[in-house]
Amino acid sequence: MKFSIERAALLKAVSQAQSVVERRNTIPILANVLIEAEGAQVQFRATDLDIEVVDKAPAMVERAGATTVAATTLHEIVRKLPDGAMVVLTADSAAGRLTVEAGRSNFSLATLPREDFPVMATSDYDVSFSAPAAVLRRLFDKSKFAVSTEETRYYLNGVYMHVADADGGKVLRCVATDGHRLARIDADLPAGASGMPGVIVPRKTVGELRKLLDDDEAEIAVSVSETKVRFATPAITLTSKVIDGTFPDYSRVIPMGNTRRLEVDATEFAKAVDRVSTVSSERSRAVKLQLGEDRLVLSVNAPDSGAAEEELAVAYGDESLEIGFNAKYLLEIASQVDRENAVFLFNSSGDPTLMREGNDQSAVYVVMPMRV
Amino acid sequence: MKFSIERAALLKAVSQAQSVVERRNTIPILANVLIEAEGAQVQFRATDLDIEVVDKAPAMVERAGATTVAATTLHEIVRKLPDGAMVVLTADSAAGRLTVEAGRSNFSLATLPREDFPVMATSDYDVSFSAPAAVLRRLFDKSKFAVSTEETRYYLNGVYMHVADADGGKVLRCVATDGHRLARIDADLPAGASGMPGVIVPRKTVGELRKLLDDDEAEIAVSVSETKVRFATPAITLTSKVIDGTFPDYSRVIPMGNTRRLEVDATEFAKAVDRVSTVSSERSRAVKLQLGEDRLVLSVNAPDSGAAEEELAVAYGDESLEIGFNAKYLLEIASQVDRENAVFLFNSSGDPTLMREGNDQSAVYVVMPMRV
Repeated sequence: MKFSIERAALLKAVSQAQSVVERRNTIPILANVLIEAEGAQVQFRATDLDIEVVDKAPAMVERAGATTVAATTLHEIVRKLPDGAMVVLTADSAAGRLTVEAGRSNFSLATLPREDFPVMATSDYDVSFSAPAAVLRRLFDKSKFAVSTEETRYYLNGVYMHVADADGGKVLRCVATDGHRLARIDADLPAGASGMPGVIVPRKTVGELRKLLDDDEAEIAVSVSETKVRFATPAITLTSKVIDGTFPDYSRVIPMGNTRRLEVDATEFAKAVDRVSTVSSERSRAVKLQLGEDRLVLSVNAPDSGAAEEELAVAYGDESLEIGFNAKYLLEIASQVDRENAVFLFNSSGDPTLMREGNDQSAVYVVMPMRV
Repeated sequence: MKFSIERAALLKAVSQAQSVVERRNTIPILANVLIEAEGAQVQFRATDLDIEVVDKAPAMVERAGATTVAATTLHEIVRKLPDGAMVVLTADSAAGRLTVEAGRSNFSLATLPREDFPVMATSDYDVSFSAPAAVLRRLFDKSKFAVSTEETRYYLNGVYMHVADADGGKVLRCVATDGHRLARIDADLPAGASGMPGVIVPRKTVGELRKLLDDDEAEIAVSVSETKVRFATPAITLTSKVIDGTFPDYSRVIPMGNTRRLEVDATEFAKAVDRVSTVSSERSRAVKLQLGEDRLVLSVNAPDSGAAEEELAVAYGDESLEIGFNAKYLLEIASQVDRENAVFLFNSSGDPTLMREGNDQSAVYVVMPMRV
């Protein structure tokens, strides 16, 4: 194998591939990236056995072939090469080395045979559709904060992507929850997605996927089966196993009968929550909300360190109410609001509270109260 | 005690004071900042028993007095208050509380009596002089990287500031070393500094001092005794104990007879060292320098992962030489060069190497070789 490639194209491809590689590997080949050169193109493939990323880059291939080399080392080298450099990669399979040359720099890296590299089995997908990057970005960005990190509840360690019934008909929906808070985000159902099986996309996959979604103009090809999900742009293909478990029936958690309605400027609210929570000890960051007519008082009482109180002018016309929340959870859901006021719908101080952005039903958040 | 103060002035004063407070304190009062209001001014004082910072800020003092309150909590609160806010601080000594009010925010913080606060004893200084912030910044910035972190060699855990003889007469000199590398930085001796006892300024003090030195126009009042050093601007006074030990006779370490002279673009050199060291295992980051006529080859050989080599065009006219260094040390001294080429003076592959910026004798670095 021998090919020349522009440093910028090589860096982009290797960066995206290497980020899926786990830093600590007991299986040496998993630290490597598989490089395959053929035609006018080179593929960089990396995997952690659950996720596989394949990046394609244009190159001048002098001799087709393939080898594997340490992903982070190659990435570091390419990152440090001068901008604009032309890089020549040459595999010497007899010596078990890959040579990387650029200008007066010359690197010789240990390789492992391509045969040892675990290429993810191709599989049949039940459904394939296309969705704008911006739509997928919103679905995952607004839900991923609620993903559980508790390993025992593995079926909550991802975002549940599925087709659901909403008021206006079927939607593409992402839901995440850790039992304390829940996010439910809807988007118009893309053509061809209606038969999609519901899948739990693992947290790490959501993080890797995010890198494909920055380009507002991009269309992402999505393929889904019971066991795998694939997201692809022309240059990058991200394939991931999905979590083998049943996502709980979240609809039962979403309160439908909450009638006490608070409307508040989300930014002002978040800042006030952040301020009053400063005095509390880090463990139990409980914030009390006292609601009266068009008036919200946020308070924290931490016997050891002190107390804090702040009043906000809000829109509230229902019966007065006292309710407590974890400050972190309140901050996280308030920071999801980007266009309108936050609307909270309360029932009693012991019941889950619903939040949404204005009257938009396509993004709904639920947060459990805590005793204060 | 009661006073009003602008949020920006309060934030600046509290930030600088709180940074000296250790995050983990077994003595509760050391987590606090002492606030003293009198006249048209408020003082914020914090200490870790070795360093004391006093910050003054203008304020409208309604009732003079003093109290102490958790430094990080106060800092966090003030940081989160809206820009432009007027903040009112009121001490209620009967209740043991300090109230912090701004707009509709209201905080009540637990206090400890001012009497418990360990104010550093004032002492007589042997020498006082004034030096431009830029001069002190250069002295400490260029030397501090070489400070040892080995606690057993406590006398190397700081920068040795003293008066020394140089070619042009007496200079104000800062030296730091960890036994592997050494930095010796000189500046013109400020008027009145000649009788100064040599002091080892602890690493943490150097870090705190750095915050006083950003303003190029500022003049810093420096006071030195055998046991303490003080740096002051009109608003801030930083007092520190100095390390009670004898700094070794560094002059014996600085090679005088090195004649093999390499001149190299410092930035290009540093980038090349950084690149070739990528392949080496993290433990022994040894880089080999092979010097021939106007030619430098940097190389690293790491049997497990690979090898790297890079050639640089340099100015070198002496006998060829092979010598090895720790890549990190080479990078650190090369990054000190900001104006000119780096000039290295070698003796043999087993002897300490000297580096300076061009022909400037006022900043000299020594680095020990390692076997490669």
